[in-house]
Amino acid sequence: MVKTLIFGHKNPDTDTICSSIAYADLKTKRGYDVTHVRLGEVNKETQFALDQFNIKAPELIERVEDGAEVILVDHNEFQQSVDNIENATIREVIDHHRISNFETKEPLYFRAEPVGCTATILNKMYKENDISVDKNIAGILLSAIISDSLLLKSPTCTDEDVQAAHELAEIAGVDLESYGLDMLKAGADLSDKTVKDLITMDAKEFAMGNAKVEIAQVNAVDTSEIYKLHDELVEVITSRTNDNDLDLFLFVVTDILNNDSEVLAIGNGKDKVNSAFNVALDSNNRALLKGVVSRKKQIVTVLTEQFK
Amino acid sequence: MVKTLIFGHKNPDTDTICSSIAYADLKTKRGYDVTHVRLGEVNKETQFALDQFNIKAPELIERVEDGAEVILVDHNEFQQSVDNIENATIREVIDHHRISNFETKEPLYFRAEPVGCTATILNKMYKENDISVDKNIAGILLSAIISDSLLLKSPTCTDEDVQAAHELAEIAGVDLESYGLDMLKAGADLSDKTVKDLITMDAKEFAMGNAKVEIAQVNAVDTSEIYKLHDELVEVITSRTNDNDLDLFLFVVTDILNNDSEVLAIGNGKDKVNSAFNVALDSNNRALLKGVVSRKKQIVTVLTEQFK
Repeated sequence: MVKTLIFGHKNPDTDTICSSIAYADLKTKRGYDVTHVRLGEVNKETQFALDQFNIKAPELIERVEDGAEVILVDHNEFQQSVDNIENATIREVIDHHRISNFETKEPLYFRAEPVGCTATILNKMYKENDISVDKNIAGILLSAIISDSLLLKSPTCTDEDVQAAHELAEIAGVDLESYGLDMLKAGADLSDKTVKDLITMDAKEFAMGNAKVEIAQVNAVDTSEIYKLHDELVEVITSRTNDNDLDLFLFVVTDILNNDSEVLAIGNGKDKVNSAFNVALDSNNRALLKGVVSRKKQIVTVLTEQFK
Repeated sequence: MVKTLIFGHKNPDTDTICSSIAYADLKTKRGYDVTHVRLGEVNKETQFALDQFNIKAPELIERVEDGAEVILVDHNEFQQSVDNIENATIREVIDHHRISNFETKEPLYFRAEPVGCTATILNKMYKENDISVDKNIAGILLSAIISDSLLLKSPTCTDEDVQAAHELAEIAGVDLESYGLDMLKAGADLSDKTVKDLITMDAKEFAMGNAKVEIAQVNAVDTSEIYKLHDELVEVITSRTNDNDLDLFLFVVTDILNNDSEVLAIGNGKDKVNSAFNVALDSNNRALLKGVVSRKKQIVTVLTEQFK
């Protein structure tokens, strides 16, 4: 009998990796035969969390067997999932994003809640099943919440996320603030990244009306450090935009200390950025988006509106 | 402040009507400002249940205001929902069907479980919220389970549905078997129906691959009574198939005593019925599907496979 595979989205972030690990733990404790895998490289922030709590990264896969039974965490849009997702049987989805480009032939268990992080839903599911969260699993669930909520500062962060984070920090035995800042800083260390790394390490593609939009986001302690590479960024993004027939590529550099983002927009749809955020891209096609840190809540929603 | 609207699918069945009523009750008890409405006529089976438990049918609506906040129960596919669903903001979905032709701009609370009836999920939600189910609400939740599971005999019926039905019968103070059979018989009284009623009273349209398929189902105590109207059925269905550019219209008459269905297939895609069910349509384009009673689990799934 082949195990049911649990995985998050491509270009995995901390919530995707940690939620796949924790949900595999919960399902295993409930008696199911599952295993967790990942669809891309583990980033530095996630690696910091895994090292801190002595957990091994899931195995990398590129495709699933035809007819494989799978559980998606932290995503539902097929273009963010494994390439041949159409050939799998999706048994469950646990997610906190909008629902789009998703369909199944059969009924399934689909649980999406409008909270800041998949890990917050999983923390609740441990309780619903009367299963206690081990110390190391608490640590990675906490890490996922810190990552998705930028240490509880993102507008996507709900009361449920805050409460879960405090509970989990207690179980994990760490100080929420100091551990959180250390983890975010580990993720914002981009010193060894190539420009190609920067624009792909946390990139997601979205269908907006008839437009194809890719949005890549990196966290930084100092955004000007990243934009020292401006010319090279423009060159690499332009060629990616052409190769993939993108209407817009938006590169988002989020300042984790000031909670703003400086964006670079390339593609025929770049004017939509001005109207969406009520800003004017400068001659470098860049703009500062004050208070914008959440791709999901503050960028995808308003940009989708512009492309309708 | 306009109330959030709760409604089930078009051509409402007992689960759709009763779940909208019960979920409005639960949300109201939790302090939310909601109201339940319906998208079509109340059928005899549902009316029997409402009368039995002294509950008024929800108000009929045809459209929602632009920007209305809505909660969908017992469906998610937009073609089964209110005509201008694209203009509403969907806050929640509680459902037990496959997911298809559904998307949102924003994250929402979406709860689908692979159980036999939406009412079974709602019964669980009362418990999760520590709110007791009143006698009359228990009665209509029970009626929904009896209807969707053909008195616990459909293959869609899970252990959870069975357990919920017994619990709810106890609270409602009725005998599950005798109340259930009375209710199903009330619904199978088709003596006053026109042919047009028969093919529309519980009809649902599905996108299967590139094909448009409509499947109408009626319950009967004696299927031959219905097929006395064979010629007229063919005429009306053929004109509906042409008018709506359907690839297939499947009319399903389910025998509630023997748990079989006799189907009539019209449209260019009618041969798919033979391959899907390993039967041969007779010269009247009819076939008996032994043991088939569930549109969702035994018809839609296998037909979709044929149209891929």
